[in-house]
Amino acid sequence: MKQKEKRNVIVGQSGGPTAAINSSLAGVYRTAIDRGYRKVYGMIHGIQGFMEGRYVDLSQHITNGLDAELLKRTPSAYLGSCRYKLPEIHDNQDIYEKIFKQLEELEIDCFIYIGGNDSMDTIKKLSDYAIITGSEIRFVGCPKTIDNDLALTDHTPGFGSAAKYIGTSVKEIIRDGWSLETEHGQVIIVEIMGRNAGWLTGASALSKGEDCDGPDLIYLPELTFDVDKFVLTVKSLLEEKPSLVVCVSEGIRTADGKYVCELDSYADYVDAFGHKQLTGTARYLCQILGKEIGCKTRAIELSTLQRAASHCASRVDILEAYEVGGAAMKAADEGDSGKMVVINRISDDPYQMTTEVKDVHKIANDERLVPREWVNGDGTYVTNEFITYVRPLIQGDVSPVMVDGIPRHLYKPGMQELL
Amino acid sequence: MKQKEKRNVIVGQSGGPTAAINSSLAGVYRTAIDRGYRKVYGMIHGIQGFMEGRYVDLSQHITNGLDAELLKRTPSAYLGSCRYKLPEIHDNQDIYEKIFKQLEELEIDCFIYIGGNDSMDTIKKLSDYAIITGSEIRFVGCPKTIDNDLALTDHTPGFGSAAKYIGTSVKEIIRDGWSLETEHGQVIIVEIMGRNAGWLTGASALSKGEDCDGPDLIYLPELTFDVDKFVLTVKSLLEEKPSLVVCVSEGIRTADGKYVCELDSYADYVDAFGHKQLTGTARYLCQILGKEIGCKTRAIELSTLQRAASHCASRVDILEAYEVGGAAMKAADEGDSGKMVVINRISDDPYQMTTEVKDVHKIANDERLVPREWVNGDGTYVTNEFITYVRPLIQGDVSPVMVDGIPRHLYKPGMQELL
Repeated sequence: MKQKEKRNVIVGQSGGPTAAINSSLAGVYRTAIDRGYRKVYGMIHGIQGFMEGRYVDLSQHITNGLDAELLKRTPSAYLGSCRYKLPEIHDNQDIYEKIFKQLEELEIDCFIYIGGNDSMDTIKKLSDYAIITGSEIRFVGCPKTIDNDLALTDHTPGFGSAAKYIGTSVKEIIRDGWSLETEHGQVIIVEIMGRNAGWLTGASALSKGEDCDGPDLIYLPELTFDVDKFVLTVKSLLEEKPSLVVCVSEGIRTADGKYVCELDSYADYVDAFGHKQLTGTARYLCQILGKEIGCKTRAIELSTLQRAASHCASRVDILEAYEVGGAAMKAADEGDSGKMVVINRISDDPYQMTTEVKDVHKIANDERLVPREWVNGDGTYVTNEFITYVRPLIQGDVSPVMVDGIPRHLYKPGMQELL
Repeated sequence: MKQKEKRNVIVGQSGGPTAAINSSLAGVYRTAIDRGYRKVYGMIHGIQGFMEGRYVDLSQHITNGLDAELLKRTPSAYLGSCRYKLPEIHDNQDIYEKIFKQLEELEIDCFIYIGGNDSMDTIKKLSDYAIITGSEIRFVGCPKTIDNDLALTDHTPGFGSAAKYIGTSVKEIIRDGWSLETEHGQVIIVEIMGRNAGWLTGASALSKGEDCDGPDLIYLPELTFDVDKFVLTVKSLLEEKPSLVVCVSEGIRTADGKYVCELDSYADYVDAFGHKQLTGTARYLCQILGKEIGCKTRAIELSTLQRAASHCASRVDILEAYEVGGAAMKAADEGDSGKMVVINRISDDPYQMTTEVKDVHKIANDERLVPREWVNGDGTYVTNEFITYVRPLIQGDVSPVMVDGIPRHLYKPGMQELL
């Protein structure tokens, strides 16, 4: 039987940006071209922008091998991202009709979406709609999130680079803290991303080694945070050590379910998915320590630096992101739909992995948290098992392409104006 | 005439730590050994720790070439630092008598102090006291400060690496800001160190290049900051561009001399030199913009990361710091006292420099600010002259020695307990 001629591919990026999401984009593009597709379109600002008719022809952006290498080293979402959640199909069929009409007009065979939980919900709904309507377009998800909280995959591209940046920066912060003596001790509190999952906060323990004790305390959002107990713990540690570094997740909560940062008066913010923008946890805890103990304090938020620091990316992460992008494209090309690529770990040391595809219905809207047994008894540190799990993912560097002393990113004239 | 036999050297680190201060320490040590001194002592926590009898024999810390290379790549002050200001000689001779007695007991010929303005005040007073009392100990200063505000030198070691980190990180923050669209626009405000001098804040313009527009606005502390005018400027820019990045010095002040961060209710802190710990400028301005314009905002403080990021150090800076440490030792060995090593720039391109020594009396307690003509007319950006000045100082990388995915720093057992 003669195979149908291949037409076009469209790819989008969704959710919070990472240092690796563009490497997956490069992987999708390369595999699509290698497998004989005519055109690869990129949605501008994901499905939301696509619904407004915004997309580009990626061949005008990745024109040669150097462009592809620069793209792998470019942080943030090259095509722009969105935080848009599709309505349920039965609630608003019009939106789906419109999207599929646009896809048909562009002669799309494969739709690849690079993103996290919320983005996999998009793949789930679109692939469901394709089944309902008999469309032959294949929808495949490519995992991406610094939070590392996607179900069924060993880990997610983007996490390794963020973890490497956090381990490196926390080590530098710890060392900086040694420099000055203070009369009543000093506590530096580092606030790390991860609303519900503590993978990134736990990665601060990577700073620990023969030349560094690592943070003194690590608090993940999976466990209830007790402010009074925290003050007592710090007080007791300060009697032995003049300078402490404490790493806390932005999402730590007290027993009544309230975010610690909400105890502060600073205004909060709710995004389109109903997620609160959490910030101020470290600052609030510093105020409490200053009041209760009288020590010197400093609050440091790693903020968007932890997801955008391409200059400190992990080679394992960037290469896996590329590979996973290619695997998503391959799966769609071979007929899979409603699937997401997952990473299976074969061994820790030497680190080996493979990819396979799994049903996106089992992944979307689910969250994979740090297991309780990977946190110590009193909930103040991660265990060696946690570190053994993360360590392979931060190995190796991706040398930035330096121009005039600063890393070069991929940029094509007019690109910013499209966003 | 037979030369007197060389005895010992003592070296200390003082003031805020940098990514380059340990490279200067390595340079002092190497030159002292090369020039035939018996022992090189390191003061623990500078002159303050030394007065308590705290010091180490550096030969037990720099035992081989690899140690020296690791030391160059180790951020913060290896020996610990202090913010201690000596009293005037006529106010408290006892302190000076005690210090000189200790120096004589250790058979010190040369006293090298690596630091900024306040540290050069220490060199000034000790060298004055040596003259008064006929002591033959030589006191020489080695410049160090990320703030780049020392008088009479083209620039200071430590500044280049901080500038490189700021240029790189601000570029990544800008790119991250492209990823998501927001209905009423988005303003990211990055707060950068430098109380009175805007060298570091201006260095954010290094992010500008063929692939990045750089920050949209840059506000240095040398110029008066007008909050109302700022709101109007942002409002007008947001009409053309959905996502803005604004870089502000922690030390910007309103016309009545009040720090912008003091307009916020967050408590302030005064250090031993009477310096206020300035933080909260970006957060305060974000609150104002949210209220006045209704845009989404994010405040990012680069905090101690900007002075401790050895993983992103400038090769020019680290090598110059080493060279300047050696030059300070050489000067003291050759009989100079009451002097500081300065860097003279011979040319921008190709970048060439030399060192010489200058009278510390002309340097201590003075501040070198960004000249008005290196800021644009309305005080919202640095000029090309500024960038041409900074650019050579961020060139080249110092590959971190990576162990298990994280940069290795110099650490000897028991070192942390000494601090």
